[in-house]
Amino acid sequence: MDSKQFKEAATSAIDEIVSYYDTIHTRRVVSNVEPGYLKKLLPAGPPEDGEPWAKIQKDIESKIMPGLTHWQSPNFMAFFPASSSFPGMLGELYSAAFTAPSFNWICSPAITELETIVLDWLAKLLNLPDCYLSTSHGGGVIQGSASEAIVVAMVAARDKYLRETTSHLSGIELEDAIAYKRSKMVAVGSDASHSSTQKAAQIAGIRYRSIAVTKETNFALTGAALAKALDQFKAEGLEPFYLTTTLGTTSTCAVDDFESIASTLAKYAPPDVPGEIWVHVDAAYAGAALVCPEYHHLTAPFKHFHSFDMNMHKWLLTNFDASCLYVKKRKDLIDALSIMPSYLRNEFSESGLVTDYRDWQIPLGRRFRSLKIWFVLRTYGVKGLQAHIRKTIKLGETFAGLLETRKDLFEIVTGPSFALTVFTIVPKVPGSEAQDKVTKDVYETVNKRGEIYITSSVVGGVYVIRVVSANPLAEEKYIRKAFKILVETTEELRDGKLPRDQPSNGVIVDVKGVGIEKVAA
Amino acid sequence: MDSKQFKEAATSAIDEIVSYYDTIHTRRVVSNVEPGYLKKLLPAGPPEDGEPWAKIQKDIESKIMPGLTHWQSPNFMAFFPASSSFPGMLGELYSAAFTAPSFNWICSPAITELETIVLDWLAKLLNLPDCYLSTSHGGGVIQGSASEAIVVAMVAARDKYLRETTSHLSGIELEDAIAYKRSKMVAVGSDASHSSTQKAAQIAGIRYRSIAVTKETNFALTGAALAKALDQFKAEGLEPFYLTTTLGTTSTCAVDDFESIASTLAKYAPPDVPGEIWVHVDAAYAGAALVCPEYHHLTAPFKHFHSFDMNMHKWLLTNFDASCLYVKKRKDLIDALSIMPSYLRNEFSESGLVTDYRDWQIPLGRRFRSLKIWFVLRTYGVKGLQAHIRKTIKLGETFAGLLETRKDLFEIVTGPSFALTVFTIVPKVPGSEAQDKVTKDVYETVNKRGEIYITSSVVGGVYVIRVVSANPLAEEKYIRKAFKILVETTEELRDGKLPRDQPSNGVIVDVKGVGIEKVAA
Repeated sequence: MDSKQFKEAATSAIDEIVSYYDTIHTRRVVSNVEPGYLKKLLPAGPPEDGEPWAKIQKDIESKIMPGLTHWQSPNFMAFFPASSSFPGMLGELYSAAFTAPSFNWICSPAITELETIVLDWLAKLLNLPDCYLSTSHGGGVIQGSASEAIVVAMVAARDKYLRETTSHLSGIELEDAIAYKRSKMVAVGSDASHSSTQKAAQIAGIRYRSIAVTKETNFALTGAALAKALDQFKAEGLEPFYLTTTLGTTSTCAVDDFESIASTLAKYAPPDVPGEIWVHVDAAYAGAALVCPEYHHLTAPFKHFHSFDMNMHKWLLTNFDASCLYVKKRKDLIDALSIMPSYLRNEFSESGLVTDYRDWQIPLGRRFRSLKIWFVLRTYGVKGLQAHIRKTIKLGETFAGLLETRKDLFEIVTGPSFALTVFTIVPKVPGSEAQDKVTKDVYETVNKRGEIYITSSVVGGVYVIRVVSANPLAEEKYIRKAFKILVETTEELRDGKLPRDQPSNGVIVDVKGVGIEKVAA
Repeated sequence: MDSKQFKEAATSAIDEIVSYYDTIHTRRVVSNVEPGYLKKLLPAGPPEDGEPWAKIQKDIESKIMPGLTHWQSPNFMAFFPASSSFPGMLGELYSAAFTAPSFNWICSPAITELETIVLDWLAKLLNLPDCYLSTSHGGGVIQGSASEAIVVAMVAARDKYLRETTSHLSGIELEDAIAYKRSKMVAVGSDASHSSTQKAAQIAGIRYRSIAVTKETNFALTGAALAKALDQFKAEGLEPFYLTTTLGTTSTCAVDDFESIASTLAKYAPPDVPGEIWVHVDAAYAGAALVCPEYHHLTAPFKHFHSFDMNMHKWLLTNFDASCLYVKKRKDLIDALSIMPSYLRNEFSESGLVTDYRDWQIPLGRRFRSLKIWFVLRTYGVKGLQAHIRKTIKLGETFAGLLETRKDLFEIVTGPSFALTVFTIVPKVPGSEAQDKVTKDVYETVNKRGEIYITSSVVGGVYVIRVVSANPLAEEKYIRKAFKILVETTEELRDGKLPRDQPSNGVIVDVKGVGIEKVAA
């Protein structure tokens, strides 16, 4: 593919992408292909001779598209959003063009320096305490995901704890103490923490324990619950060294009680004293809301903690991946992750004047991800980002308000919180088993029909439906449509009303009543 | 940015990218900005109101470009190539448009299924034993980097080893045995293995030991050296459970002696018996050469091993990131990395008919990276990929041949091997200290002048220069220019000849003698 062919191919690709976005609301939001569908459509191997772009591009609509679940569709209300935006796409395009696995500064100074700059911009925008800025002892780094951010934080915490609590030992005594401590150290989360904390503990080779949270505290972790758990862990001979707290839990968008957690830790494992517990704030989704001053009060306690992570690629209009991890002491990361073989030595790294982000992450190489963040921050501006967050939070309130109008059908369990509402279906005959059953039935039927896509979860032992409508194309009319579908499906399944007029298989009807599109299966 | 604005912006971006590639050979290949250059050029924070694309785009050339080291320039001969290609860029563009953190199958079936299909295509192309195909008990998965691939393999190996060697125990005995083993387990590499093995051991919380390799075996690990090391580890009470072997080491592109390593392990830690040593083949760079049948003989011993990884994003025309990891038993990965909270449960995952790649990697979410691999394999075809590998291998031979014509100046240490030649400068007065000094002087001067960019390393205690010219734009004329620069710089620094005509600061001369371009600093 030469320059001329690329220009033609790229122009055609841009046209297809624009057309995809302009009509995305007309597509079935969740794919309904059968497992193994694609293998039947593709040859057994790559072609011997190269193929022209026109032939390849045709296969996108005919073979790939039917197997896509459209996360950018306004009918996508499952999980959390994974936002894509036009400036984000331009960032990815340039990043691909400038491909460079910039593991150290000299590999492309701009890649490192732009990252430091835009992450400082973002830290200020999110009202993080100054200790998280690169101009103090901390700083930000872009990770591939919130999971990787937690692995990195936990490994740094583990090694710091071992180093600091055994610094008085040497020789065989030191070796024995480290072996013993490794077997007793425990990483802690609440049972509403994302599964990535447990997974990070598995990767780091460390025990994991979760603290139960309940409806009484709105599924948030409190200092009191933490204190009780720490007493228990210590009674069992365990050594807690790391804690994930969450701003916006996955199931319900609960916000842990940071103030009381900080107070508890000040007593049990004071900061800056050997044996302190590293506190990581997982704000993967809801951290985006901190661009609005009305949420700034949440961040004050973070000065007592050690790391903070939010994904611009969830709710802040930036393409996956852009997980922004901040640490209070960058030295802790570097101590745990730095290795300097001869082929990576260079005068700049050794001068100490530059940042080598490879020592802040698991991989060596890294993409130029700050470019898309820069494009997004500049294209929307602070006001544009705030407007997006406020608009989608309001949509969540609208949806919850609609649920409230039909208390005969729906019971809100939590929310609306950061645009997420969690609810159950009210069973015809009261009882938790009946409630779980009808909620699950409605959930599964709605997703099977594929007009909207939602997620379920289990909170406090109750089967719930989660609806979050916060991607860039979210609008009130889609929220109203979702509510209508939920009402009609509930009435159909619970009360035996006639099914609403379903689109026939493989064909869906535009929400505006126009534009019928056939989706191949 | 609406659809119309995006179309205009993207068209303008494509034009700029094409122009960048068409003139990349005229730019100074390695950036010569001072640390901190970018902060002086950018404002203290993002704008309050959004900015138009035209304003943002202008800053790319004026502010970002001076800080880029141009990995795609044919004058880039450092590290290993990180190839970018036009079909690869199209893949990234569509991947951004279809943004979906597809952690499980239903999140976008096409994303999972295309990955399985193209990785099977690639496995066959690379002549990997059938056990690495998804149709057997193994399969491939795209990781972000070879480092992540090694972490994943090592964690799976660690947990498998612990599980299998303690399966006869229970209760407190089991707990004690696991704690003891964790403290004695050791991950092993050669001292030519990439630093990522040591880093993975740090992350996994496990000891690391390297086995020295020497010039006698051309810096390759042999079964004999491994046997000796295993005896020693066992004498020290250590429990080796994991080994990185390498196809194409970083410093010299050495190929470990896989046959003899397999024979040694058959004796010391037989495969499929509890206590076996997991062998990972790190073919990050040179694995790409396996697309050519003349290298297929290398892969037969891999059937005795456990995992294999190669980066399409190094030498195989695919944009970063595309690290293709294969395992013989996918169950080993899933056993180590799977976690299933309620919000991720779905009928498809539970049916066992689909693959959830989140259980094969560290992160939960993942990008649609198989798309660019599909585009690349189809655009080049098998013959096109082979032609690229053979062309660049031949360029390596040409370069080594040129060095041979000036034995008074250069001494080849290893290679050409997979397009990499490693050499020293011959000192005026013999002696290893003088040799290291003049080699380092020439290396640093060449890079400082920035007409070409090369890397140094230390192998067998000797300071060496590495030259590898294998990116998509590599051509013989650039290799010849590099040779000329090395000759003239050596004659200048070693023999006191007058410096060759250097371009004045910030201005470099096109290799063809035309097209002078000012590069802002």
